[in-house]
Amino acid sequence: MDVKAAVAHGAGQPLTIETVQLEGPKAGEVLIELKATGVCHTDAFTLSGEDPEGLFPAILGHEGAGVVVEVGPEVKSLKPGDHVIPLYTPECRACSYCLSGKTNLCQAIRSTQGKGLMPDGSSRFSLNGQMLHHYMGTSTFANYTVLPEIAVAKIREDAPFDKVCLIGCGVTTGIGAVVNTAKVEPGANVVVFGLGGIGLNVIQAARMVGADRIVGVDLNPEKKALAEKMGMTHFVNPKEVDGDLVAYLVELTKGGADYSFECIGNVEVMRQALECCHKGWGESIIIGVAGAGQEISTRPFQLVTGRVWKGSAFGGAKGRTDVPKIVDWYMDGKIEIDPLVTHTLPLKKINDAFNLMHAGESIRSVVTF
Amino acid sequence: MDVKAAVAHGAGQPLTIETVQLEGPKAGEVLIELKATGVCHTDAFTLSGEDPEGLFPAILGHEGAGVVVEVGPEVKSLKPGDHVIPLYTPECRACSYCLSGKTNLCQAIRSTQGKGLMPDGSSRFSLNGQMLHHYMGTSTFANYTVLPEIAVAKIREDAPFDKVCLIGCGVTTGIGAVVNTAKVEPGANVVVFGLGGIGLNVIQAARMVGADRIVGVDLNPEKKALAEKMGMTHFVNPKEVDGDLVAYLVELTKGGADYSFECIGNVEVMRQALECCHKGWGESIIIGVAGAGQEISTRPFQLVTGRVWKGSAFGGAKGRTDVPKIVDWYMDGKIEIDPLVTHTLPLKKINDAFNLMHAGESIRSVVTF
Repeated sequence: MDVKAAVAHGAGQPLTIETVQLEGPKAGEVLIELKATGVCHTDAFTLSGEDPEGLFPAILGHEGAGVVVEVGPEVKSLKPGDHVIPLYTPECRACSYCLSGKTNLCQAIRSTQGKGLMPDGSSRFSLNGQMLHHYMGTSTFANYTVLPEIAVAKIREDAPFDKVCLIGCGVTTGIGAVVNTAKVEPGANVVVFGLGGIGLNVIQAARMVGADRIVGVDLNPEKKALAEKMGMTHFVNPKEVDGDLVAYLVELTKGGADYSFECIGNVEVMRQALECCHKGWGESIIIGVAGAGQEISTRPFQLVTGRVWKGSAFGGAKGRTDVPKIVDWYMDGKIEIDPLVTHTLPLKKINDAFNLMHAGESIRSVVTF
Repeated sequence: MDVKAAVAHGAGQPLTIETVQLEGPKAGEVLIELKATGVCHTDAFTLSGEDPEGLFPAILGHEGAGVVVEVGPEVKSLKPGDHVIPLYTPECRACSYCLSGKTNLCQAIRSTQGKGLMPDGSSRFSLNGQMLHHYMGTSTFANYTVLPEIAVAKIREDAPFDKVCLIGCGVTTGIGAVVNTAKVEPGANVVVFGLGGIGLNVIQAARMVGADRIVGVDLNPEKKALAEKMGMTHFVNPKEVDGDLVAYLVELTKGGADYSFECIGNVEVMRQALECCHKGWGESIIIGVAGAGQEISTRPFQLVTGRVWKGSAFGGAKGRTDVPKIVDWYMDGKIEIDPLVTHTLPLKKINDAFNLMHAGESIRSVVTF
């Protein structure tokens, strides 16, 4: 079938809106009509060419929401008409990772997904006979896409696509890091580095679970107002701190953060995030994605005296299980998404969404189809 | 009173056996007659002069066992005749650390202990009128020592001093790292780097809790036999591995260690210990003490994909609570200590214990009084 898509032909080039060809779903696959998709830093990272695993040409996008149109043979958990969110981290419920009870990093389709292909080793997208790569297994920058059943979360039908699409990445990544990875408890002191889309979701999750001090750290004072609206209790601009930022944060949190979150991808900030944690028990969670080859460092004494260094991918969330719950939390008013959607654009203006992101003018832009 | 002690007059000098003066216990303190003390790498580290916090002259030693001889005013939990193990990590049961439920790092007397002094800011030891520093709050290289009540664990009276003294440091450090810090579960795969006194205790604790594969890594093949006796199932000599040690260990553990332990103090090995952990959930515990100023590094991707980096001090054990339990485990045959005591010497030969350690000929030497 013909599909309207934003195609990434090469690193550093703007996306081009084109009519591409999409094959229907094979066994275990579903065809989804996308209604909305967020534009995330990870899309920009790959498009920039800095992602060493980036493949071109490709249809990017991984933060979508839509409706099942057709299901292939053997699909049991989904039917046409279901409202869904595509998952770049699948949940097969059968691999050793899914069954471990310790991780959300399902490995069922990892090798083909990493190659920009469907689990059978082929692509469903093409342009004038030339194969186009899938991206993160989702390719939501198109009005139709095909996904494996195990990479689709079924959600309630009254949830607005142009908001809950963010649960496909940013919202779940931030909220899950608090709820699943750190398991922040009521009364905890939390420090969040970076007040972009992820950091704001960390903040509102910390508020939801009853944290005491919720300290936000960002070089941009314009981030303060929205962060406060989402639950931040103290704002720290490193440029305005005399002396050592870590010592300042330890003082502000009365001994150090019980939990800190790095939401930027800066390895120096990752070190600060660890070292501002409370001696004895503070845990630091790395969420941001660092540049290729960059390394984190600290003195081992930091760990021997009780700090814990962790990371989180997709918020430790098992998509088919947890994404519908987070949609419920949004619909029940436990979390907010609307303030995070600063811009809503049609597909033909998708390059504007990247420009707004690079200019720091958007939290999230949502593309609607 | 006059006391026989091994005095460290300065960095790099042998200890000298001398008669020193010891003041009796003040309020909240107890006088202990030591019956035995282990000689540990940490004593050697301080004596070498490499410990930036080392103070001289001092009476070293922190792995002792003995009997309470006299108690000062206000002491409630101990009485003369009690068999005890001195604790370099106290347990006041009143500070925010003790009450957190998250750490064993009681801070009640930390500042004075770090200065080689009793909690009132003075020393009880002197030599011809010159003050001698306490060491780690314990100073067990003397036949009598004074400790705060909160730094003394009461143990059963049928336990042999010349074995259970090791529970004052090495045994608890290794066993506690498995039981308290990592909380290794039955069926887990464990990798242990360094098969000295700490590593062997990690191994036997892993066996005790029902681990499956217990892999020991050491450059010295002579460590193999005893490690196997303590529960090691696979021995790896890095010198005999073709190619990358981390990849070899991941293969050997069928995907990576569920838990790894660094028991050496080598920052490069700490990195290997983290990176040989299983994607998604493997936890690496740093036990070894690195040289001053040295740093650990890795790519943050290691953490974002689910590995956890932790440390452990005194095995995460709360001394007054946990040390008596570990003494019971020894007396009940759940753990072994006798094979770890390779040499028993009188105090006057204590320098031989350091020489045996440096030559790699001893696991632990115990000095008896």
